[in-house]
Amino acid sequence: MRLASRKDGRDGRLMLVCRDLSRWAPAQAAPTLQRALDEWERLSPLLREEADALEDGRVAGEPFDEAACASPLPRAYQWADGSAYVNHVELVRKARGAELPPSFWTDPLMYQGGSDRFLGPHDPIPLADESWGCDFEAEVCVIVGDVPRGATADQCAAAIRLVMLTNDVSLRNLIPAELAKGFGFVQSKPASAFSPLAVTPDSLGAAWDGRKLHGPLLCTLNGELFGRADAGVDMTFDFPTLIAHLAKTRDIGAGSIIGGGTVSNKQGSLYGSSVRNGGAGYSCIAEIRMYEQIEGGAPVTPFLRWGDRIRIEMKDAEGRSIFGAIDQQVVKG
Amino acid sequence: MRLASRKDGRDGRLMLVCRDLSRWAPAQAAPTLQRALDEWERLSPLLREEADALEDGRVAGEPFDEAACASPLPRAYQWADGSAYVNHVELVRKARGAELPPSFWTDPLMYQGGSDRFLGPHDPIPLADESWGCDFEAEVCVIVGDVPRGATADQCAAAIRLVMLTNDVSLRNLIPAELAKGFGFVQSKPASAFSPLAVTPDSLGAAWDGRKLHGPLLCTLNGELFGRADAGVDMTFDFPTLIAHLAKTRDIGAGSIIGGGTVSNKQGSLYGSSVRNGGAGYSCIAEIRMYEQIEGGAPVTPFLRWGDRIRIEMKDAEGRSIFGAIDQQVVKG
Repeated sequence: MRLASRKDGRDGRLMLVCRDLSRWAPAQAAPTLQRALDEWERLSPLLREEADALEDGRVAGEPFDEAACASPLPRAYQWADGSAYVNHVELVRKARGAELPPSFWTDPLMYQGGSDRFLGPHDPIPLADESWGCDFEAEVCVIVGDVPRGATADQCAAAIRLVMLTNDVSLRNLIPAELAKGFGFVQSKPASAFSPLAVTPDSLGAAWDGRKLHGPLLCTLNGELFGRADAGVDMTFDFPTLIAHLAKTRDIGAGSIIGGGTVSNKQGSLYGSSVRNGGAGYSCIAEIRMYEQIEGGAPVTPFLRWGDRIRIEMKDAEGRSIFGAIDQQVVKG
Repeated sequence: MRLASRKDGRDGRLMLVCRDLSRWAPAQAAPTLQRALDEWERLSPLLREEADALEDGRVAGEPFDEAACASPLPRAYQWADGSAYVNHVELVRKARGAELPPSFWTDPLMYQGGSDRFLGPHDPIPLADESWGCDFEAEVCVIVGDVPRGATADQCAAAIRLVMLTNDVSLRNLIPAELAKGFGFVQSKPASAFSPLAVTPDSLGAAWDGRKLHGPLLCTLNGELFGRADAGVDMTFDFPTLIAHLAKTRDIGAGSIIGGGTVSNKQGSLYGSSVRNGGAGYSCIAEIRMYEQIEGGAPVTPFLRWGDRIRIEMKDAEGRSIFGAIDQQVVKG
């Protein structure tokens, strides 16, 4: 089942999208995705029937329009983002000459993000000041149902309702001062955007193994392929582990979004990591800058500037987009 | 206008409460507080008419029942908590022999909290492990309407819709390791609870000066007064300043809750700060422990244990409860 939210008020209008992403139709069983998640046991079978009817043509629907999409949850009650690709974190440390604490391989790093207003997948990224160092971060994330505190990883796996992609926009040059204060990100993480589609695990086929999503996450910067890191490779903490980490001391409410952090594959060198040289590339600009810092003593690739465009998507074995594309231009504002 | 949410499903049922907190009635203009906040311009005049009708007896209502209340927003799209009482932060540092960075007096400290499931004001605080060091934190907070990014403090002041109290529960012994990881609080901040009532600024009289709430915040631990710090004293950053801090790089959505942090008045010594000796006392256990550490070399007062009860409220000049009471018992669970 492929769900999307057409832009409509604060919470959008829940839509079903057919398998080849050609058509969509408004869901009858629930007006919004949050409502569907609030009563998933009762409503998801009804939504599945509607999805089947759209698929086999009993419901005609309309041509699917990615640009009319809000994020599947235009606002959410929780957005907690893990850093599951520890290679990325290790590079960050290495670039500033610091050691990675060994516990980072066993204890997930996670931050609580703002979730009151997400950008739509094709919405511009407003940036008031280029010197803030705007970066994209391409990630995979999941939406869960209710999870009781203290839940095991297996219980958490069973609570995964939907999978989607996100662009977790970061203001890199605001991060050091903010993190130095000790309380995490506030100003340095403006609104994120999510992929047009949120997809149920059973519709992902072999790409979803119950705990991780597999396949290259394509990041295209100003029309040029910049990254194709495999989301299933070097993910130290899988989604059930991340969810269980969040649920250790508190209940998690339905509709919470849990992210896996910037996808990052372990690669040897700046030369070898570039997609031009057959490497996996990068799911954010900071990562190539870290290679540049480590090997050349200084970063070279600039962060996003007004007018830059970032496109994030993932394709199946047949080359079809799985989640639709996040496609955003940075604008002054 | 005094609003509350009677426990009912995930979002509660919006209720109007009369001035002396004797009666309440279901709101007709909006079923939930979030809905009212989403369309405040249109709906708040209707709610005011209903509040007047309840006040003058045209609507009879029912006896107000604090224990039947959920938090005014049982779940919210945002909970961002500032540390506006820098005295508290300075004591934390002093207790561990560290200097307070001078920027802490000019740049607000704030963290993004979880908001997917709040406790009700009379709900027990479930605690799986006493060794986690459970503490209450008594705070004042506001609920805002939409705030555009880059808003001035004056614009932010105009966006304040409601004022309430919170118990920002903290697991003190989980904090050091979590903050050392650099990404802020996740496991060390379980669900918070808010006061039964959220009150419009115009109904607070002289206690609200447009930027701060004034008056002693009463904290009663196991039936004994533990704190009565004045919320209007030593608040280095007022609410408009805190909101503007959060809005620097992103729009804030209606229904976001912004907290002022643990209320703390500057006091000289352990002896003098105690309410028994005429002091203002403490709005959390950590604060008396810091005095004990600084003066005696080690903390003495234990954190909350199973069975302990914490009550937080504020009274007006006539001794009437303004927000109703947060009254919670710590339970094993």
